[in-house]
Amino acid sequence: MSEPRTELSSLGEFGLIEHLTRNIELQNASSILGVGDDAAVIDHFGKQTVVSTDLLLEGIHFDLAYTPLKHLGYKSVIVNISDIYAMNATPTQIVISIGLSNRFSLESLDEFYEGVYAACEKYGVDLVGGDTTSSQKGFIISVTAIGEVAPDKFVKRSTAKKGDLICVSGDLGGAYVGLLYLEREKRIFMESPGVQPDLENQTYVIGRLLKPEARKDIIEFLAQAEIQPSAMMDISDGLSSEILHICKDSGLGCRLYEEKLPVSEEMRMAAFKFEIDPTACALSGGEDYELLFTISQEEHDKLVLNEQISVIGYMTDADQGSAIITKGGGQHPITAQGWNHLAQ
Amino acid sequence: MSEPRTELSSLGEFGLIEHLTRNIELQNASSILGVGDDAAVIDHFGKQTVVSTDLLLEGIHFDLAYTPLKHLGYKSVIVNISDIYAMNATPTQIVISIGLSNRFSLESLDEFYEGVYAACEKYGVDLVGGDTTSSQKGFIISVTAIGEVAPDKFVKRSTAKKGDLICVSGDLGGAYVGLLYLEREKRIFMESPGVQPDLENQTYVIGRLLKPEARKDIIEFLAQAEIQPSAMMDISDGLSSEILHICKDSGLGCRLYEEKLPVSEEMRMAAFKFEIDPTACALSGGEDYELLFTISQEEHDKLVLNEQISVIGYMTDADQGSAIITKGGGQHPITAQGWNHLAQ
Repeated sequence: MSEPRTELSSLGEFGLIEHLTRNIELQNASSILGVGDDAAVIDHFGKQTVVSTDLLLEGIHFDLAYTPLKHLGYKSVIVNISDIYAMNATPTQIVISIGLSNRFSLESLDEFYEGVYAACEKYGVDLVGGDTTSSQKGFIISVTAIGEVAPDKFVKRSTAKKGDLICVSGDLGGAYVGLLYLEREKRIFMESPGVQPDLENQTYVIGRLLKPEARKDIIEFLAQAEIQPSAMMDISDGLSSEILHICKDSGLGCRLYEEKLPVSEEMRMAAFKFEIDPTACALSGGEDYELLFTISQEEHDKLVLNEQISVIGYMTDADQGSAIITKGGGQHPITAQGWNHLAQ
Repeated sequence: MSEPRTELSSLGEFGLIEHLTRNIELQNASSILGVGDDAAVIDHFGKQTVVSTDLLLEGIHFDLAYTPLKHLGYKSVIVNISDIYAMNATPTQIVISIGLSNRFSLESLDEFYEGVYAACEKYGVDLVGGDTTSSQKGFIISVTAIGEVAPDKFVKRSTAKKGDLICVSGDLGGAYVGLLYLEREKRIFMESPGVQPDLENQTYVIGRLLKPEARKDIIEFLAQAEIQPSAMMDISDGLSSEILHICKDSGLGCRLYEEKLPVSEEMRMAAFKFEIDPTACALSGGEDYELLFTISQEEHDKLVLNEQISVIGYMTDADQGSAIITKGGGQHPITAQGWNHLAQ
């Protein structure tokens, strides 16, 4: 028995939008007017508005061969609201535009939106608008997230100070080795379509890639502990690339300690299987969506009890450069090996 | 001598963003933090924030065979801020994401951004963020516009009242016949590449398609004349499609008068050349980005002197249906023949 398939053309553009947005219940008092007009209206009286946008393209940012659509919808929201949290702000609304070819059925689009709505619900965000169009090729997703922050409490990348401690949430490199597993299984499947995927219970690292979370909990912890980071950003391209942004924008250098880099046991074991260095994965693997931030040394005591936060180094003068101190005591310059799509 | 060509890959993603945004000077006091961080920060204290987003895809929304990149950049901004004006709001910021393949050089991308910045300057809008990525195929543009409006002064589609007058700005159908000209010239060029295009001085209608403007002047006039429209939207899909949205969302019907539809002499002559009915172009041609709005009859006197506004009909009870009264006195139901991309 085949799955039901409803052609998108049978609904038309406006019918489709009505279908996809029929169950929206706005969660935020600031969401004055949502989907269904020329624009949405938001009331952030007394707060500052934060805006971030991301474009996700099939074949560049995701591969539908191993990305369930529901996960993709979820991740599309996470990627964006992670940027809002990285400003020390709270996401409140998103608008989402999609371009899709006729090979998508209504049922598959529903799956995608199931993920979108699941993320919206979990993070208390309202979907308030968007645009839906056909594409000639590939699935195109554009998400813009709006958030709010108390006046001048937002945290930039450019305001780290010499001597500040460098902190990171969660663990790093997991999404990258998850990607290696999925790419390997795809290759095997392409060569021998009958072979069942052997993901060796790599649910942790694969979950890191396919269904990341945004670190709302860290932002809430920082507020509760009354820690105002001096600089912050989220880790989408890899730790090396991101810390170099903070160094450059703040006019400073840094020292990281290899032994302090937070890595999961699952990531470490997987890296060994692929015969790559777990430290390289932690430094250059992207898409973990953890938070990287700096705090003054005086605030150190406030976060030692939070096991989700690791202190991995400190900021130096610019003329010290940016380097990592290895477990053996050596010192290597940090270079950006982030996922530079344009160089591919 | 060939044009200089700089490969995008020579800059890298961050180098490219720096290059494209190097000349930005923020114009709005509300633009607290612009390009270069995880998100932008906007301060709309005491006002409500309005958000709109559009996705523009090569091959669906534009054809680079006859669309200069500078015009495309300009239009990408206009299309979006037109939605903000249609809420009776003022656009203040945009974020713009682009996906592009290696066939684009830095020089061509600069041309596109020249148009983006020209529109930003003309309309007093700040570019405050975005995302730049490679695409496997085609040029992808996603724009999100943010605006502000005095509390509860925004105008929806759903609040027209029975007896209200239906008004439209400017003239209609021009962009559509402009498209017919350009498509014809493209066909001729494809068949005989040596033949020079003969656009017969159709600069007005071609300009309507390639370089539309948003009706900032109308919103300013309405504010100055103290006219609060009861419903409003912009005309992107065509008058028929848009007035049916207002009727449906407001639970009403309407009567339009063919003789009142504003059409330019250039559009009318061009329509005759293509042997199509100018009224059909005015009703169903999209992309004019004029404003369609309703006002109470008492406000009629306030706008009679504005030659840029035409009263084209009135709202009725829903059971009267939606119809146009022809010059001959006949009555025809209005049907949406808007540019439905998904039905193509």
